[in-house]
Amino acid sequence: MLVSILSELDQVISRLNKLFEIADIRPVEWADGKVRWLDVSSLPWEEKIIETDNVERLAEAIKGLEIRGAPAIGVAAALGIAMVVYNTRGGIKEIMENGFKAAEILSRTRPTAYNLFWAINRMKKKILEASDEKPEVMKEKVLAEALLIQLEDIEANIRMGEHGEKLIQDGDVILTHCNTGALATAGYGTALGVIRTAWRKGKRIQVIATETRPLLQGARLTAWELKKEGIPFKLITDGMVGYVFMKKMANKVILGADRILLTGHVANKIGTYTIAVVARRHGAAFYSAAPTSTIDPSSKPHQIKIEERKPEEVTTIMGRLRIAPEGIEAFNPAFDVTPPELVSGIITEKGIAFPPYEKNIAKLILPRH
Amino acid sequence: MLVSILSELDQVISRLNKLFEIADIRPVEWADGKVRWLDVSSLPWEEKIIETDNVERLAEAIKGLEIRGAPAIGVAAALGIAMVVYNTRGGIKEIMENGFKAAEILSRTRPTAYNLFWAINRMKKKILEASDEKPEVMKEKVLAEALLIQLEDIEANIRMGEHGEKLIQDGDVILTHCNTGALATAGYGTALGVIRTAWRKGKRIQVIATETRPLLQGARLTAWELKKEGIPFKLITDGMVGYVFMKKMANKVILGADRILLTGHVANKIGTYTIAVVARRHGAAFYSAAPTSTIDPSSKPHQIKIEERKPEEVTTIMGRLRIAPEGIEAFNPAFDVTPPELVSGIITEKGIAFPPYEKNIAKLILPRH
Repeated sequence: MLVSILSELDQVISRLNKLFEIADIRPVEWADGKVRWLDVSSLPWEEKIIETDNVERLAEAIKGLEIRGAPAIGVAAALGIAMVVYNTRGGIKEIMENGFKAAEILSRTRPTAYNLFWAINRMKKKILEASDEKPEVMKEKVLAEALLIQLEDIEANIRMGEHGEKLIQDGDVILTHCNTGALATAGYGTALGVIRTAWRKGKRIQVIATETRPLLQGARLTAWELKKEGIPFKLITDGMVGYVFMKKMANKVILGADRILLTGHVANKIGTYTIAVVARRHGAAFYSAAPTSTIDPSSKPHQIKIEERKPEEVTTIMGRLRIAPEGIEAFNPAFDVTPPELVSGIITEKGIAFPPYEKNIAKLILPRH
Repeated sequence: MLVSILSELDQVISRLNKLFEIADIRPVEWADGKVRWLDVSSLPWEEKIIETDNVERLAEAIKGLEIRGAPAIGVAAALGIAMVVYNTRGGIKEIMENGFKAAEILSRTRPTAYNLFWAINRMKKKILEASDEKPEVMKEKVLAEALLIQLEDIEANIRMGEHGEKLIQDGDVILTHCNTGALATAGYGTALGVIRTAWRKGKRIQVIATETRPLLQGARLTAWELKKEGIPFKLITDGMVGYVFMKKMANKVILGADRILLTGHVANKIGTYTIAVVARRHGAAFYSAAPTSTIDPSSKPHQIKIEERKPEEVTTIMGRLRIAPEGIEAFNPAFDVTPPELVSGIITEKGIAFPPYEKNIAKLILPRH
């Protein structure tokens, strides 16, 4: 696939190819100077693979949810910046200019995605760092950085799975929300990766997947992945969550996070907070699984900006079927924030943080000496 | 419209026509020897008015959810029996035979609808009672009974609105679930009737309507009615309920009931219990509005049988759009039960029952001396 003179890039590619054997579903990847993705907005109707060397098209794909899930978006943005850098004909100045312009374009796609900014900043830093190299070396270093972000995400998910699966027992029925699987990450999945690990280790578990309106990531994507993996599951509508816990049909919640604060506040897909409230009433443990890159060390809960998306997502089904009268108002917050008192634990690739979060989340992201 | 020699029928028609000025949306009504209905299963895509003098076609409409909501179904069945009786050419024997046959056909439409059997039994009783009259008189008496069932339901809803609107203050934002409006009743609505009354009295209120998956009665029907009435509202998905309360965007819940026990347990559309749990966490009052005919004086909470409907309702949108991969399992309970400790009050046409329910609900249905 990639021919390189740099051992650094070669090494990343070789490690990545090895990981791809475990992480067989990849929503976004490098394709010889282009970025290639599975358009998840077309699932389950169609498995559409799209390739581009145009960063505006990639930004559109992120904005239009062809690529979604915080880590997948981060990887897509990193690969997008690498793509622009890689394809620039010219000197260091042009490469830097184009790279930073790409970063700017990609950063304007999804305001709540902390991971996106983290990945973009890391790429910008690498561009600066590599700017005293020759153009060809610089390009390869920047590409290696993007692939490393992808690799690290898959590795982190596999480690997250190892940590998290210890919380799962034989016989558990785990409720999950939205899609936190391979399709939302560089591969393998976060919360769904934890479930995947438990399943691959032979634990007899079942899953309840919420459909997750408005964009139906549960019905469309999680169901698709669970079916592919062979894990027994039942799909429900979001309003059935209370009934499921009341009837003791689920005993655990494991879902993802778009942003985690040091306080333990978890910003995640709209509907998460409702699930947390109901789970707590029925004594079901509630875990959020996300890479430590999701941890925002500086924001306060009230500073989390909740993205409001267009009302058509509520008044239609993915733009394919109108379900409400024309000309009405709809409210469409994309995320909510679950307070720490409802969170039983936060699963990361570096271990699980339990309360008190103020102390234990910070510990996870402290630089190791 | 109808020419009658009977003051009894004239009187019902005259009272009904007066009520129709208030209850302008009628899902089902008498139309000169036919039954006419608005096919709510086609809303919001089409406003299809259907008329028939064929009782089999009417039974199909009930089975196929063209007519839905317990009171609306009861009225439809009563009008259907009256229609068959009215159109029978022959003597008392033929009228009775045809009437009872119609009752039989209509009773096979929705096996769990308590209200349907109540209306059918009342019609059968009237047929027997009037069978010593002349055929023309008998026909008019039977028709008068069906129209009386319709009239009484509308009147009950208007009274329910008068009682319930006292719980509503200027500035309230009321969250409602499913459809409890004119379209689910003979007219005016139950919970939505309470909201309607407050609005018509000039209270400045707003509504948040949950879409109510799987069958989207909120998005399709409640949104349609609220728009027609001009009440300002926002449509949300079921999972947004937690966020709405956390952000203090709603301060009250008013929704319907399919069955209310003397203990105060409220069986209602799936999703109700989840709303109740979240509302309680945020100190929002939770009211259920339903006619006293919904009160089940003998069942215990564990005896409430929850109807499970076909999984295709979850894996598709009204059979029009598949949203999940083929060949997966879905769980589809149609109702849930909210325990009395989460219910702030039960609004009926005879007044509002507050806790302790064991005492106060029974009071509402005691025969008055």
